[in-house]
Order: sequence, then C-alpha cells, then structure tokens
Amino acid sequence: MKKSTIALTFGAAGLLVGLLLSNVSSAAGTSYGEDRAQIEDLQARYLFALDFHDPNLYASTFTPDGVLDYGEGDVRGRDAIIKVIAGMPGNRPAPVASSTSGSAAGDKPALRPAAGRHQITNIVLKIEGNKAVGRSSWFHVGNDNPQRSNTIGGFGHYEDELVKVKGQWFFTKRRIYNEGSAKWQYKGGVNPAW
Amino acid sequence: MKKSTIALTFGAAGLLVGLLLSNVSSAAGTSYGEDRAQIEDLQARYLFALDFHDPNLYASTFTPDGVLDYGEGDVRGRDAIIKVIAGMPGNRPAPVASSTSGSAAGDKPALRPAAGRHQITNIVLKIEGNKAVGRSSWFHVGNDNPQRSNTIGGFGHYEDELVKVKGQWFFTKRRIYNEGSAKWQYKGGVNPAW
Amino acid sequence: MKKSTIALTFGAAGLLVGLLLSNVSSAAGTSYGEDRAQIEDLQARYLFALDFHDPNLYASTFTPDGVLDYGEGDVRGRDAIIKVIAGMPGNRPAPVASSTSGSAAGDKPALRPAAGRHQITNIVLKIEGNKAVGRSSWFHVGNDNPQRSNTIGGFGHYEDELVKVKGQWFFTKRRIYNEGSAKWQYKGGVNPAW
Repeated sequence: MKKSTIALTFGAAGLLVGLLLSNVSSAAGTSYGEDRAQIEDLQARYLFALDFHDPNLYASTFTPDGVLDYGEGDVRGRDAIIKVIAGMPGNRPAPVASSTSGSAAGDKPALRPAAGRHQITNIVLKIEGNKAVGRSSWFHVGNDNPQRSNTIGGFGHYEDELVKVKGQWFFTKRRIYNEGSAKWQYKGGVNPAW
Repeated sequence: MKKSTIALTFGAAGLLVGLLLSNVSSAAGTSYGEDRAQIEDLQARYLFALDFHDPNLYASTFTPDGVLDYGEGDVRGRDAIIKVIAGMPGNRPAPVASSTSGSAAGDKPALRPAAGRHQITNIVLKIEGNKAVGRSSWFHVGNDNPQRSNTIGGFGHYEDELVKVKGQWFFTKRRIYNEGSAKWQYKGGVNPAW
Repeated sequence: MKKSTIALTFGAAGLLVGLLLSNVSSAAGTSYGEDRAQIEDLQARYLFALDFHDPNLYASTFTPDGVLDYGEGDVRGRDAIIKVIAGMPGNRPAPVASSTSGSAAGDKPALRPAAGRHQITNIVLKIEGNKAVGRSSWFHVGNDNPQRSNTIGGFGHYEDELVKVKGQWFFTKRRIYNEGSAKWQYKGGVNPAW
C-alpha cells in the first residue's frame, strides 16, 4: 500500500467522520432539546433569584446590555436592572394579626414571616442557532396578609428574546405583561405565541 | 491497492459509520429528551392558542382526525374541534364594578378587560418511537369578576395520546378531566399516571 | 495490500469511531437535556403518586435508602416513606353543603368528591455525571371544603438530591419547605438556588 493510498483512505474516512462529528456536536450542544433544557433552567433560576431577593443573580440572567420591561419601558443593562429589583419590596416582617382565622396551617399567623413565589408555566420556545424567542405564563402565590391566607397575587405572561453566548443562554429582552394592572396588562389581543 | 481492497475498506468503514449514524440520528431526533422537549412545546402552544382564542391554531395541535374529549364525549377531527373552541366564551368586556375594593393593583377594575390563563404542570410522558402517552395537571387563574380579583377558575388533569408525524408531534387524543364539575371530574380512583 | 496494512487501516478507523461513539453515548444518555428530561418526568410522576394515593409508587421515586424530610426530620428508606404517605389524609367523602353558593360549575357541590393537586414549577437542576441537585417550587390547588370552591392549599419549595442508577434517576433526598407552617417554612433567608 502506497503512502498516497493510505492518505486517500484516511482522508476519505476523515471526511466522513468529520461530517458525522458535526452532526454529533449538533445533537449534543445545539439540539432543540439541549437548548430548551438550558433555557428552562435559566427561567427557573431567574424566579428563585427574584423571590429570594438576589438582584445581582437576577440581573446575571440577562446579557450585560439586556433589557427588562415590566410595563414601564426599557430598563437597559444589568446595573439598571439590579437597581429596579433591589428596590422592590422584600418579605416584610409579619404584621400582628387581629385574628387567627384564615391561617392555612392553624398556627398563629403573626408568628411567621410572609412569603411569595412567582411561578412559570406554558413555556413556548422557538430556537434558531444561538437565538431564541419565548412565550410563557406566570402567576404569583403568596400569603402577605394578616391571616397568612394563600392568594394569587398576580398573573400574566412573558415575551422573551434570548441569546446563547459561549454555550450559555441569557435574556436579551424580557417583556412582562401583568393582568393585575390596566397599564401593564396585555393589549395585543392576538395570541402572542404561535 | 486493488480496487476490490479499496471497496472492502470503504465498505467496512461505511458499515461502521452507518451503524453509528443511526445512533446519532436517534440521539438527535428521537431521544427521550428531544421528543419530550417538542411535546412540552406543543403543550404550551396549545394553551396559548386556547386562552388567546385562536381555534384554528388550537386544532392544529391535533392530528387531522384527532379527538378532544372534555367530558362530553369525543369531538373528532380538526373542524369539529374548531367549532367547539370557537364557541367558548372569550374575554368579555369588563363589567362596570360597583366598588373598586378588591382590585389587585389598585386601579379602577372596570377600566380593564378580564383575563384568564390555563396552565400546565406535572408533565408525565412515556415515549416509544413515534407514539407517546401523557398525563399532566392543569389549573386556571383568572379575574373575570367585577372586582378583578384573582381566582382559581378550575383544575384537573389531562390524559393524552400523541403521535409524531414527519418529525412533529400532535395530539391524537386529549381527554380533559375537570374537578369543577361532577360530570367532568375524574372518577377512576387509581393513579392515572405510572 | 498486506494484512498488517489492513489491520492498521481498520485499527485507526476503529479508534476514531470509538472516540466518536463515546461522544454519541454522551449525547444520547448523559447530556444535560436528556438527564433533565428524565428528572422532570420523575418529578411529575412523584406528584401523581402523591395526589392519587399510591404510597408504593411514591416511595419508588426514592432510592431504597432515600430520605424524605417534610419538616419533621429524616424519614429514611422506602418502607418508612410508604408509612408516612399512606398515613396522610386521602380524598374524604364530600360533606353535605348547607348552600350551593360558591360552586365553580353550578352543580350541587355535595354530590361530588373533593380533589386536590400538588403542582411543581421553576425546576432548577444542576447535573454532574450520575448526581444532581435540584430546587423547585410547589403549590397545591384543591376544593376540599363544603362549597367545593377552589383554593390554594399551600405552597413552598423543594430541595432535592438525586442519583442515576443504571440509567434511571431517583431522589436520594427530598427536603420539602412549606410556607403554610411556622415550623415547616424556609428560614434560610438566602436564595436556595443559584
């Protein structure tokens, strides 16, 4: 077997393997399932950061120049986003209740701090290469009232644009619609998803 | 190197690569994670279509002869499904409230339209080849009342059968159980999942 | 072409294919998306088992020596977990209502059994090899009251440790935080996720 023949053999094999490898990379790193899994994780981490009052972590789910719009126009960049989130009311100390009626667990409600959790459902994602567009629903469950009774504190939907930078997904823009406010609610009428 | 030897070499390599490629295809297109990701997206798109009153899009999540059963028996085929969904009450104009008490955001509730969102959680999926069986939970959050106060409008679960046609998943049957009605609620007793 | 040359050719091709195959296996079996998909399914199956009163199935989502802690300390091992879950109040027969007001669907509420559904959202997962750590939110929707009106029965979050055994994920530990109780609620202050 001549050198040139060996080269030809390996060259051709290399071509095949190379083509194959590009498919594998696609499967491992940029398939719909892989990207969706990472974006779902981002969405969930965002909400833990929000409810547990971690403005820096919250902002880190955006690109450095990412935009948050919760109904008052663009808040652009992590620093500006941190200021907005840090300024939101945290879990206040529980007020002393005049009555224990309505307590979910029967213990004295005034004895425990209130809590609230934003939650995401119905995640629709269109992913093309390193960019994605998302729609999803959110609602809030909380008990920040004297009786510590559980209530739905709000609901609405998200409209997101995302980008993958060095293998990691970030929000480039999150638009929040909130049905608890005439100003913030969705007025588009048509289905924001597809 | 003889032609026959070249053929043998490439033939054998081709066999290996072919076997490998079938594995890769499996990983990229039909793995549990990839299929689940696509079905989750379908589930979410279905709900946006429902709540934003897009009967055609809603029906397109079913196969052409797909069946919807929300407790009144089989509604078979996209045309029949479109009729059912188009006949559902949409977001009605907000009634004028006699009082502003109970407004979630403090603005005059009569000034804004009501909204409601069905939401899906707990998605259980068994996938075999191009068929899947699903179980999941749903609930509804809305504020279609004079005070625009947030309420849980209903809850229950879905029992689904799905098929993948040319790489895309569709419902072949969705059975909806609704715990808000003696007729529509689940009476099976045993765990509908596994 | 000599035998030794053939061996060399196939040996080298085999090496490449072998290297490639290990990547493929990784993509198919242990990628983030694949593992997350399986863990999401586990999370959902756990909740169906809980709400539909299947203690054995519930316990099977844990490793044989898995630990459940719902706020009263470690319940260790499937047998102990089965006892705890089997001892929880099931769906009681519906009490006769003194009034039909408040019925979600307008039928006589006393005529139908109550129901309740725990639901999971915001699933954060960090996966490394065969181990995973999870954080997620939960809430409960139910109607176990004379009026069969829908209420939020509770909410909180999960802190999970998981292991993959022979390709299948299990909880090794689930810590449940419940904001409906001063004893069971989260007191860590800081974000339990990342």
